[in-house]
Amino acid sequence: MPGTPPTRFVYLGPEGTFTEAALRTIPAAEHGLRTPARSVPEALEAVRSGDADAALVPLENSVGGAIPVTLDELATGSPLMITREVVLPVEFVLAARSLTPLADIRTIAAHPQASAQCRNWLRAHTPDATVIDVLSNAAAAIAAAAGEFDAALCAPIGVPRNRLTVLAEKVADHSDAVTRFALLTRPGPATEPTGDDVTSLALSIRHDQVGALLSVLTELSVRGVNLSRIESRPTGEQLGTYVFFLDCTGHVAETRMGEALKGLRRVCAEVRFLGSYPRHRLTPEEPVPSPPGLSDTDFADSAAWLARLRAGDSA
Amino acid sequence: MPGTPPTRFVYLGPEGTFTEAALRTIPAAEHGLRTPARSVPEALEAVRSGDADAALVPLENSVGGAIPVTLDELATGSPLMITREVVLPVEFVLAARSLTPLADIRTIAAHPQASAQCRNWLRAHTPDATVIDVLSNAAAAIAAAAGEFDAALCAPIGVPRNRLTVLAEKVADHSDAVTRFALLTRPGPATEPTGDDVTSLALSIRHDQVGALLSVLTELSVRGVNLSRIESRPTGEQLGTYVFFLDCTGHVAETRMGEALKGLRRVCAEVRFLGSYPRHRLTPEEPVPSPPGLSDTDFADSAAWLARLRAGDSA
Amino acid sequence: MPGTPPTRFVYLGPEGTFTEAALRTIPAAEHGLRTPARSVPEALEAVRSGDADAALVPLENSVGGAIPVTLDELATGSPLMITREVVLPVEFVLAARSLTPLADIRTIAAHPQASAQCRNWLRAHTPDATVIDVLSNAAAAIAAAAGEFDAALCAPIGVPRNRLTVLAEKVADHSDAVTRFALLTRPGPATEPTGDDVTSLALSIRHDQVGALLSVLTELSVRGVNLSRIESRPTGEQLGTYVFFLDCTGHVAETRMGEALKGLRRVCAEVRFLGSYPRHRLTPEEPVPSPPGLSDTDFADSAAWLARLRAGDSA
Amino acid sequence: MPGTPPTRFVYLGPEGTFTEAALRTIPAAEHGLRTPARSVPEALEAVRSGDADAALVPLENSVGGAIPVTLDELATGSPLMITREVVLPVEFVLAARSLTPLADIRTIAAHPQASAQCRNWLRAHTPDATVIDVLSNAAAAIAAAAGEFDAALCAPIGVPRNRLTVLAEKVADHSDAVTRFALLTRPGPATEPTGDDVTSLALSIRHDQVGALLSVLTELSVRGVNLSRIESRPTGEQLGTYVFFLDCTGHVAETRMGEALKGLRRVCAEVRFLGSYPRHRLTPEEPVPSPPGLSDTDFADSAAWLARLRAGDSA
Repeated sequence: MPGTPPTRFVYLGPEGTFTEAALRTIPAAEHGLRTPARSVPEALEAVRSGDADAALVPLENSVGGAIPVTLDELATGSPLMITREVVLPVEFVLAARSLTPLADIRTIAAHPQASAQCRNWLRAHTPDATVIDVLSNAAAAIAAAAGEFDAALCAPIGVPRNRLTVLAEKVADHSDAVTRFALLTRPGPATEPTGDDVTSLALSIRHDQVGALLSVLTELSVRGVNLSRIESRPTGEQLGTYVFFLDCTGHVAETRMGEALKGLRRVCAEVRFLGSYPRHRLTPEEPVPSPPGLSDTDFADSAAWLARLRAGDSA
Repeated sequence: MPGTPPTRFVYLGPEGTFTEAALRTIPAAEHGLRTPARSVPEALEAVRSGDADAALVPLENSVGGAIPVTLDELATGSPLMITREVVLPVEFVLAARSLTPLADIRTIAAHPQASAQCRNWLRAHTPDATVIDVLSNAAAAIAAAAGEFDAALCAPIGVPRNRLTVLAEKVADHSDAVTRFALLTRPGPATEPTGDDVTSLALSIRHDQVGALLSVLTELSVRGVNLSRIESRPTGEQLGTYVFFLDCTGHVAETRMGEALKGLRRVCAEVRFLGSYPRHRLTPEEPVPSPPGLSDTDFADSAAWLARLRAGDSA
Repeated sequence: MPGTPPTRFVYLGPEGTFTEAALRTIPAAEHGLRTPARSVPEALEAVRSGDADAALVPLENSVGGAIPVTLDELATGSPLMITREVVLPVEFVLAARSLTPLADIRTIAAHPQASAQCRNWLRAHTPDATVIDVLSNAAAAIAAAAGEFDAALCAPIGVPRNRLTVLAEKVADHSDAVTRFALLTRPGPATEPTGDDVTSLALSIRHDQVGALLSVLTELSVRGVNLSRIESRPTGEQLGTYVFFLDCTGHVAETRMGEALKGLRRVCAEVRFLGSYPRHRLTPEEPVPSPPGLSDTDFADSAAWLARLRAGDSA
Repeated sequence: MPGTPPTRFVYLGPEGTFTEAALRTIPAAEHGLRTPARSVPEALEAVRSGDADAALVPLENSVGGAIPVTLDELATGSPLMITREVVLPVEFVLAARSLTPLADIRTIAAHPQASAQCRNWLRAHTPDATVIDVLSNAAAAIAAAAGEFDAALCAPIGVPRNRLTVLAEKVADHSDAVTRFALLTRPGPATEPTGDDVTSLALSIRHDQVGALLSVLTELSVRGVNLSRIESRPTGEQLGTYVFFLDCTGHVAETRMGEALKGLRRVCAEVRFLGSYPRHRLTPEEPVPSPPGLSDTDFADSAAWLARLRAGDSA
């Protein structure tokens, strides 16, 4: 029922991944039902079918980039809406069944994105170890716990779960890496604007890329709407045909965002609204004031002026 | 009283100029009261003060360009509105008190704009005559009739009035020269859209000219509004500070023009709406269809879509 | 002979107008031959035919705006080049044959642009006087000296010449009004860049006005070239067909102006270069530094980089 | 040695993947030495260190999208250059050790991107089978051949190598899916323009995304350069900081591309040129003619005109 806070949560599993850790930062989820899904499509399907109220899935990582399957799932199928984002620092640990000198480690299980994010550290500290690709961070921890490999690169949450010992903490090359997750629900009214919101969109543009992209950016720019992110994903039809994913600064309830959305709706082949929700900031930032002429008041003033003109009162 | 058709007309005199001829093409004026004014400011003042219902004054000539005093008067003082335009072919005749061989003409009275428009003809046909500047076409005819000069360059309407004889017809270098006149009233509702209308504006822009003009043109361009004319006039304050006069294709009652006006209102220091009125065409032209995404229906559709999004129905 | 400083000057006469005063601020003209011309076309023809080395004619006035005949003459005929601009404060005096109380003045001779610039003063100080239009400021002074009218609005230079007495000084409504004059020669190399120069152009654009003007402004904007002035003049062919006159900030010898000119040449139907010359400032202003990426060094760096890429050295 | 055709090729292994199949379409590779690499970084390192002359790695797939590791490797480290692209239709087969009815298949080994591309087929034809993720298409074939799973989704090239039997051909949901590969060498002169070329770039833009992206697209647009692809990848520093990968239509040796590159070099924080090379088309297309004003001749004409202006010959 729209308006009812979600109580049944699904998330990209398995248990012990960063997604579970991210979900547990949401109070309602900490007290609700939390079910792991085997894949992003499975998680979203649970929400679409009504088996869950909300799904938490990764959107992008500051080092690894967009999570393609999430974007592809959002652009197709019945619409879902992002109602919240969670940004979580990503920390990797090197863990093993028992305390082992780094020099004795011969094999390290790791998800490829994890080993990519720790490449320099591994080269410096375990130059002789072979990295073996596995299919998730949780799988790496489980395999190390089972003795299949000497150690695992995994999330801190995987250590106690698998009774591992930490050999080294914060082994990621970028110490401030983060992953951004989206909480998805069935469509409903957006949360109230907070003054520091994000609006996410998926756009299909017409053929000429420079011209069409210029049109899209111009529709945003003339209303002073900024982009915090732009991603492209193939539509699957042919090389060179894309869906663009945009994260814009602002909220659908604000006039200038509304005007920009209406403009995009007119110039794009298709626009899918993916939600307006508060920006999650790890460190607070000063809000940026509206540029001149672009506040809700400015829009209201210009609309009132036009109404007067049309009524014949141009004085 | 708004809505009442005007009956008391004032026009830029004296009698016997092109402006009187233009006024008489308007049926209501042909049957109403027609009073000449000594200057454009005097004509407009008569409307502003309520002494007249409407004033006809020249806006621009296809050869001589804008009539600066008209633009300056429209940009300042209490607002007036263009409710009609009249485009009149401009024909000049060479006339004299009696039939005289061209070779015998020694002096020709002419308004400087008239002699400028007939320069090549005069050089070819009356190479030895001296052109004497006078202050209006009507004054030229009067002076020739008074015997002060051998001939006059004047409007055909000046010939019977001053009992002159035509020595040569159609002596203008550009045979298709026209003057465009504006019928001005106190502000009121615009006439109904006809599908082929003009909207006239006076804009003050902020300082950086390239940037500010780009903003103005972009506000028009993103709504598919075309310009048929742009003029600049100094504000009188310093070199480089201008008021821009724009004639745009479309009507204030149309959505895309309304959106463009609201955008201009937000990005310009000042916007003065000078009226939406039917374009006067001497030869009919095919109407240009709305570009894709810019019809009233497209705007209505995008507004309805936004309303659904805001109501939480993004399906 | 190109390179030889001009010695034979022609100017818009008659003697005693502001143009003569402006010409005398140029040292070479003060010591050279100065001949008045009866009109702007006559002045320019003297240069084109070789009878004069340079012509000084008015370009625009900060209150009255552009001088149409000068623009039209520059856009057509054999090319001329602006090599210098002179900006002259415009002061009007009310003068008479002898000292007369203002209350006794019944008739005032004035050029229409002069009376327009002094309108408020005249209304306040000589409310009962009739203003009679004459054809130049010099003609007004001459007519008052001849006793045809009680007084004249004229330039200070007209007072001693006609042995008049000043009744009131600085009677213009805008006390800081200026007129800008152009010194025109046959084409030759531009003067050296000074760091504070103007480049003047006449452009013919293709039909769609918004699109074509946007292209023109974009070519300037992407090279960081600013506009200090834009004027439109009809081509004489039909309403809505214009030549645009642009004054741009910068010098043809500078890379970014050169790049902008090349771009304009490609997107416009026609570009006529009217000269690069030092800006004449009555009060000095701080030079504006090049925006990032737009200095001659930045352009040279990017060209060198491209040359390396083409040579196969993309390291 | 620059100019020498490559003879030692490395490719993303293992043997039996689509990359090997793509490499073998290049005649020089068919006759040269072909070494598989375990990863894209390893393949590129072989070229950077001089152990190989050229590396073939996947750039993007029309269904799965960009290959992030390839983009990340191209944007950092010592520069490499794309000298050729290969576009290969992607076909998947379902194969097993021996002919087995589909209804009897219980487990299918597949790389996650492969199972994603065949999702609908699998749902329709093997609804009861469990898909097990493995790390490459080749690994899937090997595992099926070893009897670990009942069947494998793999490339046709993997069938004879592992003595498998094809159970079903062309099982991909998009029958026209393709993968695009890049042949990378150390920097050197680009191949000759063919009239249908691609230029690839990696750009770092400054902070404000709408403004900076608009600048980038405007630099392309004013020179009539079109985009066939735009991708963003995080720089690893923080969310919202991206490197953009652009594939532009045209060749570095063409004037308008050169002008666009110089413009990008000036407005971007960094531009890395990744090569100009012939577009590989599976089906021939009509070449698109240069828009007006944008041919090499138009650029040469405008440069010659500017040179004349600067020499003082504006006639």
